[in-house]
Parts: sequence; C-alpha cells; structure tokens
Amino acid sequence: MTAPTVSPVSLTAVDGPGQPVVTPELEDLYRGFEKELLVPLWTEIGDLMPPHPRSKAQPHLWEWTKLLELAGRAGNLVPVGRGGERRAIALANPSLGGKPYASPTLWAAIQYLMPGEDAPEHRHTQNAFRFVVEGEGVWTVVEGDGIPMRRGDFLPQAGWNWHAHHNAASAPMAWIDGLDIPFQYEVESQFFDFGRDEISEAEHATPDRSRSQRLWGYPGIAPVSAIGSTAGSPLLSYRWENTDRALADQLLLEKEGFGGTVEPGHAAIRFTNPTNGADVLPTIRTQFHRIARGVETAPVQTTGSSVYQVFDGAGRVTVGQFSWSVCRGDMFVVPSWQPLSIVSEASGSDSDSGALDLFEFNDAPLFEKLNLYRTHTLTAGDPS
Amino acid sequence: MTAPTVSPVSLTAVDGPGQPVVTPELEDLYRGFEKELLVPLWTEIGDLMPPHPRSKAQPHLWEWTKLLELAGRAGNLVPVGRGGERRAIALANPSLGGKPYASPTLWAAIQYLMPGEDAPEHRHTQNAFRFVVEGEGVWTVVEGDGIPMRRGDFLPQAGWNWHAHHNAASAPMAWIDGLDIPFQYEVESQFFDFGRDEISEAEHATPDRSRSQRLWGYPGIAPVSAIGSTAGSPLLSYRWENTDRALADQLLLEKEGFGGTVEPGHAAIRFTNPTNGADVLPTIRTQFHRIARGVETAPVQTTGSSVYQVFDGAGRVTVGQFSWSVCRGDMFVVPSWQPLSIVSEASGSDSDSGALDLFEFNDAPLFEKLNLYRTHTLTAGDPS
Amino acid sequence: MTAPTVSPVSLTAVDGPGQPVVTPELEDLYRGFEKELLVPLWTEIGDLMPPHPRSKAQPHLWEWTKLLELAGRAGNLVPVGRGGERRAIALANPSLGGKPYASPTLWAAIQYLMPGEDAPEHRHTQNAFRFVVEGEGVWTVVEGDGIPMRRGDFLPQAGWNWHAHHNAASAPMAWIDGLDIPFQYEVESQFFDFGRDEISEAEHATPDRSRSQRLWGYPGIAPVSAIGSTAGSPLLSYRWENTDRALADQLLLEKEGFGGTVEPGHAAIRFTNPTNGADVLPTIRTQFHRIARGVETAPVQTTGSSVYQVFDGAGRVTVGQFSWSVCRGDMFVVPSWQPLSIVSEASGSDSDSGALDLFEFNDAPLFEKLNLYRTHTLTAGDPS
Amino acid sequence: MTAPTVSPVSLTAVDGPGQPVVTPELEDLYRGFEKELLVPLWTEIGDLMPPHPRSKAQPHLWEWTKLLELAGRAGNLVPVGRGGERRAIALANPSLGGKPYASPTLWAAIQYLMPGEDAPEHRHTQNAFRFVVEGEGVWTVVEGDGIPMRRGDFLPQAGWNWHAHHNAASAPMAWIDGLDIPFQYEVESQFFDFGRDEISEAEHATPDRSRSQRLWGYPGIAPVSAIGSTAGSPLLSYRWENTDRALADQLLLEKEGFGGTVEPGHAAIRFTNPTNGADVLPTIRTQFHRIARGVETAPVQTTGSSVYQVFDGAGRVTVGQFSWSVCRGDMFVVPSWQPLSIVSEASGSDSDSGALDLFEFNDAPLFEKLNLYRTHTLTAGDPS
Repeated sequence: MTAPTVSPVSLTAVDGPGQPVVTPELEDLYRGFEKELLVPLWTEIGDLMPPHPRSKAQPHLWEWTKLLELAGRAGNLVPVGRGGERRAIALANPSLGGKPYASPTLWAAIQYLMPGEDAPEHRHTQNAFRFVVEGEGVWTVVEGDGIPMRRGDFLPQAGWNWHAHHNAASAPMAWIDGLDIPFQYEVESQFFDFGRDEISEAEHATPDRSRSQRLWGYPGIAPVSAIGSTAGSPLLSYRWENTDRALADQLLLEKEGFGGTVEPGHAAIRFTNPTNGADVLPTIRTQFHRIARGVETAPVQTTGSSVYQVFDGAGRVTVGQFSWSVCRGDMFVVPSWQPLSIVSEASGSDSDSGALDLFEFNDAPLFEKLNLYRTHTLTAGDPS
Repeated sequence: MTAPTVSPVSLTAVDGPGQPVVTPELEDLYRGFEKELLVPLWTEIGDLMPPHPRSKAQPHLWEWTKLLELAGRAGNLVPVGRGGERRAIALANPSLGGKPYASPTLWAAIQYLMPGEDAPEHRHTQNAFRFVVEGEGVWTVVEGDGIPMRRGDFLPQAGWNWHAHHNAASAPMAWIDGLDIPFQYEVESQFFDFGRDEISEAEHATPDRSRSQRLWGYPGIAPVSAIGSTAGSPLLSYRWENTDRALADQLLLEKEGFGGTVEPGHAAIRFTNPTNGADVLPTIRTQFHRIARGVETAPVQTTGSSVYQVFDGAGRVTVGQFSWSVCRGDMFVVPSWQPLSIVSEASGSDSDSGALDLFEFNDAPLFEKLNLYRTHTLTAGDPS
Repeated sequence: MTAPTVSPVSLTAVDGPGQPVVTPELEDLYRGFEKELLVPLWTEIGDLMPPHPRSKAQPHLWEWTKLLELAGRAGNLVPVGRGGERRAIALANPSLGGKPYASPTLWAAIQYLMPGEDAPEHRHTQNAFRFVVEGEGVWTVVEGDGIPMRRGDFLPQAGWNWHAHHNAASAPMAWIDGLDIPFQYEVESQFFDFGRDEISEAEHATPDRSRSQRLWGYPGIAPVSAIGSTAGSPLLSYRWENTDRALADQLLLEKEGFGGTVEPGHAAIRFTNPTNGADVLPTIRTQFHRIARGVETAPVQTTGSSVYQVFDGAGRVTVGQFSWSVCRGDMFVVPSWQPLSIVSEASGSDSDSGALDLFEFNDAPLFEKLNLYRTHTLTAGDPS
Repeated sequence: MTAPTVSPVSLTAVDGPGQPVVTPELEDLYRGFEKELLVPLWTEIGDLMPPHPRSKAQPHLWEWTKLLELAGRAGNLVPVGRGGERRAIALANPSLGGKPYASPTLWAAIQYLMPGEDAPEHRHTQNAFRFVVEGEGVWTVVEGDGIPMRRGDFLPQAGWNWHAHHNAASAPMAWIDGLDIPFQYEVESQFFDFGRDEISEAEHATPDRSRSQRLWGYPGIAPVSAIGSTAGSPLLSYRWENTDRALADQLLLEKEGFGGTVEPGHAAIRFTNPTNGADVLPTIRTQFHRIARGVETAPVQTTGSSVYQVFDGAGRVTVGQFSWSVCRGDMFVVPSWQPLSIVSEASGSDSDSGALDLFEFNDAPLFEKLNLYRTHTLTAGDPS
C-alpha cells in the first residue's frame, strides 16, 4: 500500500447521537483509518445522505447589463484564438468555490465575437448549445454547415461535432452558451480535439437556411436517407419564429378552452430531437416558457438544477429564500430541489403582449435516464 | 444582484499562449469578473476540457488484512444504530481530499456486523450492493424479504427499497458495500428515509432462499404476476455457485474451441436484471472475472472508474503508473481512462485452480446512457 | 374431440421427392389425418415455407380517372350514413379472390364526399390515414378537432380515435384512405365503436389550422403539457407545403454536393411521429418520393407490400413482370419481394419541374418490429 | 389497367340498413366496380370491421393418444429427409378450410423421430420452438450446438438459425413444435435455406448441457463476451427442473401470504430472453401454468390466439361455447377474444400434487408491439 506520507483523511471524534463514545481506543482507531485512507460512514452520513437534496449551489441572479458590459470590454482586450478557443465568460455560482459552474452540473456563459472574427474549430465530448437573446450576424459552422444565429434562435450542438463560429456582421455579437462541462468534469468523460485554426472562405458564406434545417427543419418529416435515432439532434437550429408561434398558440388554445399549457397562463415548449422525440442533447434539456401578464406559476421543486435567461418582458422570480426582479437578458440559477416560482409583471412591461418569456436549460435527462428524477409542486399544505 | 462581500472567484492574469496580454485594463476586467461572479473560459480550458480524461483520482490499493483488522476494532468500539446507521468504513482515494470516495462517482466500504446485531432499517435513492468475500451468517432484509449472504454472493439493492441487516451467526461478519454516493452527492439527487429502528422477530428468520430468489432465481423464467421492466433487479442475490460455474464453463468452452471468454484465459460475467437484461442497478455495473493461471490481460482504458476486489488467487495488477501484488480481499481502484492490466500468478496460488478471481464494479451505465462511453485496448503501437 | 362430420382436411398422396411411397397404409394414414384434423408438413412445405416470399398478391395498376368516375357515380347513388359509414371504394387485388385488399395487409380506397355531407363518427382499432391528390373543402374531425384537407396533405389517424368527416365546400371531394384492415382482419385484433350520428354545428367550423397542428406542428418543438411517446402521431396533418419544400431541398442539397437523397435524383421523406421519431402509425409507414426528370430508380425488393399514388408528373413503373405508364392519381400495388423500379418521364411532363412525385404507404413497421424486415437492391449480378 | 378477363370481384346489391337503394343505376355501378377491381366498404364493413374480434378459427381439442398413434404410424411409413424435411403433423383448425393452421397465426404440430434418425439441417425466418411432453433421447443441433430434449424441456429456436435433429436413443420420440408459419405466410416474410443433408458424426454427441446453456443458463448472469439484446433468446433450452421449481415456489409463496401467483391457486411463468427480458421469440410468447387441485381460473379473453398442451394432471377446459375434459398431452386452441377458463380436477388425478400443469404458446408479442393488445377478465356483470 503506497499511502501518501501525510494522509488527506482527517477525522475528529465527537460525542453525539449515533456516534461512538470518544475514548483513547476510538481516537487510535481513527488514526488507523487516516493512515489507511479510510473514512467511516457514521461521521459523514448526515452530509452525504441527506433526507432530500441540499444543494451546494446557491440561487443567484446575474444581470444582463453587467454581463454584456464586461463581455464588451473583453472584446477589446482578449483575442479569440487557438488555446483560449472562445471569448466565453462563465457564471460562477457564489457557493461553488469560485469555479466556473452555474450549478454542480451546468456551465452557462456569455460568448462575444467581434466583427469579422472567427472562433477556431474544435470538437469535444461536452454537449453544448447556443441561445441568442439579442443581435444577429454570427454563423456557427458545424461540420462545414453554416447555421445563422438571430434573436430567439436556439442552436444545440451535441458532443464530438467539429464546430467554429464566424461573425459576418459589422457589429459585435453576444449570445449565451450552455454546456455540461461541470458534469463531465466530475465524472471524467471529456475528450477534446483541436480542428483547423481557420475555417475556409467558403464557410464564411452566410446562408439563410443551413443544410441541417433543409434536411430536418420540417415538422414530422424525416429524410429517408438519414433515418435513425441519434444521440444529439440533427436539427441544428430552432428558429424563433416557430418557438414564438408555438407559445402563442398554446395560450390561444387555453383561451379557447382546449388546454395545451402546463398551468393556466403558462405556456411551455421543449426543444426535441426529431429522430426520437427525446431531448436535443443527451445530458441537457432545453425549454421555453411564456407566462402571461400577471400570472404567477406554482412553486415547483425538482431534482437537478436549471439556468434561465429572461428573453422578454419583466417579472419577479423566487427561488427558495431568494427573490429578484428580472428583465431582458437576466440569468438565474435554480439549484436542486429549491422551489421556483415566477410572476409576470402585471403592467408596465415594454413588450407588446405583457408576457414574460424565459429560456430554460437543465440537467433533467441525467436524472430521468438514471431513475433519479423527482418533481413536486408545493401546495398550501406543504411544510415551508 | 446579491453578490457575497468577498467573491469566491479569484483570477490571475498570466502571459501565455492563448492568453490575453496582461495590462492594467485586463487586470481591471478580471476584477470586474470577480465582482460579478464570472470566470472566463480562456484561463480554465486546459483543466476543464482536457484532450482526454485526466482523473482527479489516483490508482490505489487497500489491503484486505488491514481493512479487516480496523473493521474488527470498530466492531468493538462503534455501536450500530439509528443516526450512524451502519458500521461501514469507506475507501478514501488519496487524491480526493480525504473524502470517502473511492473514485469521483463510487463509494466502496467494508461493513462489519457483530453476532446478533441488527443494522436499522432505512431507504435511500443511492443504489447499493453487497458482495461477500468471506464468511456468512448475515441476512439482508429487503422489504421484509430475508436474503442470506455467503462467500461469493452478490446482492444488489436498487435505490428506495427499505432494508436492514441482521447477523444471525455467532461470529462477526464483514462484507463490502458499493454505492453511487459520490455521484448522487455531486448531482444532488439524494433522498433518505429512516425506517423502523428494529426489524421484527419474524424477519430474524434465516431462510435458505429468499422470496426474491424463489420468484426470479430461475434462468430465463419470469413470474407472469410481476412481468415488466424495472429500474433495479428484482433478483436480490446472485449466488456464488452460479457465478463460479458460469466462469468455469467459459474457460472450458474456450478450451473446447468455442470461445465464450473476453480474451484468451479471461472469463467474465456480468450480473444483469432479469426483467430487461440491463445492469442490475441504474448507475452501477457489476462483473466477475476469472483469469486463468499465468494469463495476462490486455491493458484497457475506459471512461469512468471501477473498483475491484480480489476474490481468490493471487497476481499482479497494473493501473497506469501503479503496480501491486494482490491477494484475497484486496481492493483497488482504477480511475477514468487509466489503463488496467492484470496477471494471474503463474504458480504458488493457494487456490486449487490457480486462477485469479476478481469482483468488479464500475460506473459504466452512466456513460452508456449519456452517450459518453469510450473504451480502448492498448496495443504495441499506442503512445505510452 | 368434436370433429365436424365432414373434415375440411383433404389429403392426396402423391409420389415425389421428399414424399412417402404411396401405399394403402399411407392412404389409410392420410384418412386418419383427415378424420383427426391433421395435416402433415411434408405435403405442404413447398407452399408454406418457400425460399423467399412469393406473394399471393399481384402487381396491379388502377387508373385514377376510372376510380374518380366510379366514385362520382357512387356520390349520386350511395348515401353516407350509419351502417355503411363511409362512401369508400377499395382496390381489390386481382389475385386475392375479390376481397377488398390491395395487398395481404393493406387496404387502399378512394373516398368521396358530396357538398355538405357528413360521414358519421366512429372509432376503430384499425390504423388509418387520408391523402389528398386533388381538391379541398373537407375537414376531418378527430376528437372534436377539425383538420382541413387540401391537395398534398397527409392526415394520419391512429387506431381508436373518434373521427368524422364534413364537406364544407360546394363541390364533391375525393381522397384516398389507407388502413391496415386486411392485416387486422387476419390477426383478429379489431374493435369498432359507433359514435354520434351527426357531429355538432360547432364542429362544422373550418379552421385553417387544427388544434393538433397548433400544438405539434412546429419542427422539433413539443408542448411540455403533452410530452411522452405515443403509439400514433399526435400531429394530425402533414401539410403539402412542408412536404414539397423538404423534397425540393433534398434535390438542391444533392446538386450542391451535400447528399440528402436516397439515390441520385431521388428525394424521399418519411412522415414521422414527433413524440418518438417512429412511423406515424404503429403498422403503416408513409413516405413521399420525388424523382427528378429522366431519373430511373434502382430496382429494390423488400419484405412486405406497398401501395403508391402518383401525385404529380408522369413516368413508367415496373414491378416484377409488370410495367405501366402512370400519371396523376394513378395507384399501384407492389407485392412482397417484387422488385420495383420507377422512371420519371424525360420530357413532356405537365408539371413545372418535370419531376415525378409519388406518395407511398407500406407495412414495413410490422416487419421491422418483428425482426422480419429484409431489403435488397438488385444489381447487374443478381439472378433475374 | 390489365384486369383479368373474369373479375374475381362479385358484388350483390341488397336492400338493407346503411345500403343504397337497389336500382338499375346501382347495378350498373357495381358492374363497373367489378370490372375495375373495386369493392365498396359499405357492403363489407360488417364482416371486416366487427365490434370485437370474431375469430375465423374455432375452439378445438386434439387428444394426445390419437396424435401419438397417428404419428407412430407415420414413423413407419414416412421417411425423414430432404424435401419433406420433418416428420411433423400439424393441427388443422376445423374452421380454417383444412389448412395446417391451429389458429390464423400459429402452427402446432407433433413431430416424431425414429431411433437413429436425423432430420436434415435447414434454416428459415419462421420462429419456432419445441416442447417435450414425454420421452427423451433427441438432440436438436443449432449452429452445431447439441441441445438435449427431455420431458418438460422447452427449446426456443428463433428464425434464421441452422438446425437439425438427431435421435440418439433406441426408441422413437415425439414432441410438439410451435411456429409462426401461418402468420408469416399471410404477411409474406418467409425465407428458407437448405443446409447440410446430414450433420457430422461430431454433432451426434449427446452432451448433457449445451454450449448455449453453459453460456446463458445461469440466472441473471450474462457472458461479457456476448452482451447485447438479441431478437431471439440465446438460451436454447429451458429445463423442466427449473420450470417445475419456479411454479412450485409460486404456490408456496402464495400459501405463505406473499403472492406471486396470477390468481389464487394459479401459478404462471413466462419463458424470457435473458438479453432483454422480452419474449423468447419475436412473434411468440410461451408460458407455463400450474393450477392447484380444484382451482378454477377466471375466464379471460385476449386479442390473439393461443395453443395449450396439458403437461400433467387432468381437468376441464372451457373456451367460449366449447368445453372438454383434458389429460396429459391433449392440445387445444383458443381463438381470439374467446374466453378461456380452466378447472383442475378436484380429485382422482394421477399426478402426485393433483395440480394441472399446462404449457401455453400464443401470438401476444404481435399485438403488444403493434399497439393492438387487449385483455379482459369476465366478471359476473359482463354480458354473456
């Protein structure tokens, strides 16, 4: 046994319920555990096996104006190129030790690209997506296929595809990236490959519709040449006009008496993989919510964490003991089992409809596939 | 934004490839990141997104004689009861900060029960199993069903079943527990419930065959009353006599020219859920290996980690840069992507056959279900 | 044993390879078989277990002009109402004994509804769809949801949904129905319920978009309120404009060098269930083909049968020993394992593009789900 | 359109509810339909789309003593060899026109092999099994693996495996074969290949345990070298001792108060594929029942048909309007949706336990996979 000279294990015997009586023999036993790299369950069980999830993460809000201001400054100071790879700036949950983790499993960042810039090509096992809260002019190039990015568009990017970005516009553009970097870091599944430092002139083309969209972008229609379930979605952009209309239709159907919403005044859609109807990414679920003016959602707690970005409208968000006013672009994180409730502002919204629109991503696929998913809607009878 | 007064984020600007030039403006930007709880990708990418998994864990061996000696002392000093719940002592990987983690996802512990003792009833979402390297006399009581434990037996225990243990023998008994505690701790999916402090006299019965075994313990035969895929195996013990014969048959079939082994001289079986043929637990794979006398297995690297316990025989194990002689009961951990090779001792074994028998558990189901599984067998041409 | 007085079994002993010598004892044995309702394999095996499928059905073409003329006469003579249920006239394969079977598993019919007529509500386990080759003005009302029908639209109708039809136009309308009536008749799985004799005035509304389309008609977007795999597609119409554009895009992508077609000049799409990416109906696959001007498809043989309707253009179709010139609306059947090849007319088409468009339905899901699917593309080396 | 000179379609206009008024014009229309090979729905719907399955098949009993006597005579008169392939004699349902169909989907036959005889090697897409009600001494050789056959053994044989039979004993042996011949004949999916006319001397070996059993015959244990779901079971024999004990255990568990049976006094097991927990064959379900002395099962009706063979004991079987006394070896068929109830004789059984043991096979996998399965247990309130 090649134990290190100083053991990282350090045990303190304390009196208490379920604990052994502190005696010299017990102290001696604990020194033996330390020497042999052992830790007893009985001193750790309260933290390791709690009655319900007690997240290491904390609810937190990041204001878009501040994110954008800092990203803009980075645009001037930080080059985009091989090595650093991306001008991406990640949300660091305040209780996760300063690591670039929005939650224990999720990465959320603002990415920023200056006019004419290319972000170099690479591929990695981490599953990713982009979502655009404002602006346009960047094309993501996936395996040579140029995908335009515009306000409201959602672009999934399953692991191990070559991809680069190109800003074809005359203005900088910002968007958000979501990845499962923290999860893959913890379970140690990551592979990464550098691709070409520069993409070709041909790939600087700015097609209005990507090849992906032309093959997979029709509802319920699959190309026979590419039939078969895939781990990640072959549809590489989900256009805002579809998302918007789908949400509007749900609220109209509800008004006509036909349901369709998840609760009164709360429309919600999920982005899905057309080859199998599952989530667009193996580890990440992505959804969009529209909460009608003045509506308050029921508080729901769920295993796993989620990150939201306000797309439009204004309102108030409550996560556990935290509560914030939110407006366009603001991002917040909901840790595991913390109840979330959202109110759309009753008046004074600067959007036409007065609805509050939110983009959401979370790690629910992990939990569902591993038989660990639970959700609970709080009602008056629940203990606070 | 309710940032803490002292940010946990701390950034240091350094010159280097892919890094921005260090200027006062950059320092100012980094202070802004810290204040707003942001971390750039470009300073972290080398660690976060490596070219292949570089495990935080270290290969390590724990000798059974030492484990058993310490567990025996705990038997005299540490009571088993409500609060501490179990007299279980976990392997703490030397490079994981003293936490009771054999690897970033797996818990492995020796559990010890004195004659006549009961471990109190509880249930938890953590998936668990027991494996018995020596001894007998304990019954695990799962939802009231008493399961005997004897040398070589493997007992899966999927999450959220009530269970307790009872030592009906006149001697102490030790066994090992494997769980996904670290994984569930990281992803924050854990629920835990206390059950009865004492199980009933009726549950102190010592049936030779459990109800589970009587319903599900016949090859290829399912009770029509309980048809349907379940997340965890309804078969609650996998008896040594079956495992032993299955391994012996593989080596015989190979000798007769019909294959059946995973490589020459290396028999391997997987414990499976009879309702669906999948792994016995949603997050943990369990296998048994028999390596014929003098055989050396090919070095294999795999995403995810595994823990082995030597069941019989002796040999030499190499994991990455580490190498150990092993004998009965010894346990070792193989971190993600570290190559593992095992040699069965060519002579001098104290077992009849001279084969080296090893029980293995790992976290491969996570990776397979999330499209993250990779495996690679090293050959002469591979870079060292 | 309650054998009928006259056995339906009738055996004739004949000399031949693999056959027993004809003797009085053998004749006596055969009389015993007949009496006891037994049939030996050795007299039947050649027919029952052929080297490859030899279909009982025959390739056949039905001309649309004749179908439509007869349906129009039926419109004047045959009422639509409870009992007869539908003014539907089915293709009867010439070698299936006059039964209304296009093939041993598939029903194909022209249905005809006069202005203002309602077809009464019912539901049945038979899976169905409608496809519109010309005209418009009928709404199918499924569980109260009105679905418009226009040229090119495809409307799946999975088993056991209540449905009725209403012609809101001032002209008659014809379309085709496909069902698995013969299959369900053979395996005896059919249930049928009468619904309301007349649908309500409210259901005579003529919405441009159905509720189904508003919930499920956006590419890759699912309503969170209705997540979950369903046996039949919840999307109740697949609009022509999407089908048309998807086919056009495939031919363009091919021209640009990016593939997408199933073979050069041959675009093909499959209608899929957005909840799981599978076929829209549990027993029926539906596809659409566009064959560019002058292109000839490779001859392909497949287990199972299919029915095609020409949607646009003209060309020549060869099925086994049969060959026909085809134009808009014509329908033909391809029996199991009969090679099919199609040529789009090189010139003189009355469609703009000169392409030949065909709608197809077949029974491939049966074969795939039961591990019986085979397909083979004939090449020069194959025996004719 | 190449219509035959004499159309197989023949339509008769009749007055009646839901039918058009019989006029010369209608007669003329019907002649047009006949000429163009068309059949209207309105004249056929009552037969084609009934309110519930009305089977073309009839409940029927075949007595084993008669089957065996005729098979024995065939043993003397009919050679086994290439062309006829098997000395198998099939049950012909009295209402299926003398075809060798026990039901519209299932083939059931007695097969008979004389001492020293070989049945030649072949393979076919039809899924098959053997079940042994008495005797022993034959080995089925599947892909070169010799599988012994003894009383109570069940041997599945999924489509497209090479197989032959060899009688190594000094006495004739009979057993039953079940296949999906009628189903595959109707849907036209059949392929058939002749193999070697004679199997090798080496394959005349009479191993006590097959290779299949040595790899797959341990409960919940899979060989790592062959992991993966397969369409047919890789376990090629299910030994009587396991079936017997599993059934006995269920009745004991019920007596002890723990359930396990499908209804009081009625134990039932299903043979399953250990790679996925599904049925052993893609199209056929196989089960075994033990009905305790004096017990009467609840009448159950199910979509699809089944065939039973009495394995031991005696009793009375009721299927729809038919009822028979049954004893060892007797076979009966239960058509679709006909209620089945079985009473085990209260006394006078020649088996020790007094239980009635029955082997069952049916076509339920078809229905389940195609979303067509229904079952209903009749209670006092149901219409007779």
